[in-house]
Order: sequence, then C-alpha cells, then structure tokens
Amino acid sequence: MSDHPQAPVAPVQAFEPPYYLAVFTSVKTEDQSGYRETNARMEELVRKIPGYLGMDHAQTPGGLSVTVGYFRDADALTAWRTDAEHRAAQRRGRTDWYESYTLHVAKVERSHAFSRTDSTGPAQP
Amino acid sequence: MSDHPQAPVAPVQAFEPPYYLAVFTSVKTEDQSGYRETNARMEELVRKIPGYLGMDHAQTPGGLSVTVGYFRDADALTAWRTDAEHRAAQRRGRTDWYESYTLHVAKVERSHAFSRTDSTGPAQP
Repeated sequence: MSDHPQAPVAPVQAFEPPYYLAVFTSVKTEDQSGYRETNARMEELVRKIPGYLGMDHAQTPGGLSVTVGYFRDADALTAWRTDAEHRAAQRRGRTDWYESYTLHVAKVERSHAFSRTDSTGPAQP
Repeated sequence: MSDHPQAPVAPVQAFEPPYYLAVFTSVKTEDQSGYRETNARMEELVRKIPGYLGMDHAQTPGGLSVTVGYFRDADALTAWRTDAEHRAAQRRGRTDWYESYTLHVAKVERSHAFSRTDSTGPAQP
C-alpha cells in the first residue's frame, strides 16, 4: 500500500477508540518497475476488507515513505495481512522495491482531530 | 514536530513491544511563517524526553504530512504531550500552521523490520 497521487488531500479522521493502525515506513530502491500497478491493486484489495477504515500516505521525494492503514479491529488487520495476493506483493517488495522498511501494528487508545472549519473526533482529555 | 530535511533517510527501527506511537497527520496552511524555527525547537525538546525512541516523517509536496513519534511507554508520551513549550506550539499550530490534522495515540503490539542488507526487529509470527 502506498502512493496516492489522486487522493484528496485530507488526513483520515479520528475514529472512536479502540481501533487498530499499521504504520509502514519505507525507503525504496532505484528500480520501481511494476510497483505502481501492484500498489493500485493493493489499494483496491484493502478497500474490500471488512473493517478497513482508511489510509494516510506521504512520501518525501527521494526520501522516506510513510503509510498508515486504519482498521476497526485486529481481525480486519489479520484478514489484510494474510490475504494471498497481498502476501505475494510483500514478497515482491522485499525482492525488488524496498531498500528497508519497518512495520508497527498498534491499538489506538486515544485520537483527536482538528480542522480550521470544523473540529471532529473524540475530545482530548 | 515535522520536517527533517537533514535527517538520514532510514525508517526508525522496530522496537520490542509494547511501546507507544503517536501518528500525526496534517495538511498545512499557505503561510508557514515561524514554523521551521518552532519545529526545530520541538525536535530538540522531544529528544530530551526520557523514553523518547525516535521519529519518522514524510511530506508529499503540496500534500499530506505524516509524522510518527515513538515512545517507550505512556508516561513518556504524557511528558511530551504536557510539555509547556510543546503546548504553546500546538496552540500556534491551530491558529496559524494547520489547515487540518489528526492525532492517533496507540500501543504497539507487534513490529517487524526489513533491510536489504540486514533483517532486524522481532520476528513476525
């Protein structure tokens, strides 16, 4: 999961905790042949996972890429993690596309959102 | 916390769970006067928090900014959240620098890292 050149520019909202997130940070290799197509397919697939809530992505040109996926519960994340096509893409990623990456899977305990025009999400204690 | 033009390009490592992370996603306003200085000061301050583990940041030009801060435990995150100078910077952020943002605070249950030259971090089940 990654590049969203076409996505509207707005952070994913704050959901009611508890929910899960997966932080995927990566540095890519020089040769990104096939990455864009696979990435688009992964975005299509993850949206079909029951309990998938959304995704944030940013990439500094020539630098770090950070993707955060949000899921309603651990089962939703497990469904995504064990998807056969996703697993094949992960293998391809290790072989071809990623110089290095880190994955952090975490349970959200608190969330908060701010918007210049509207304040949403659970209030911060 | 945000821009790291000088940071080495490598994802923060996978630590031994449990640990905490804070995902801060934002879209900035046009006028970023004073942001760079405050951001540099915040990076200096957060590094002094006992239990601070590191930070990942990426920003798509003209798009979303994603910052992830890692902390050993909830106390470390609370110390950072309640720091007086950080609080003042947060207020300034809402007034001047952010069009919108979302904060997700979460406890890491699982982590994994990959590097082309070396595989680090706890093994994935």
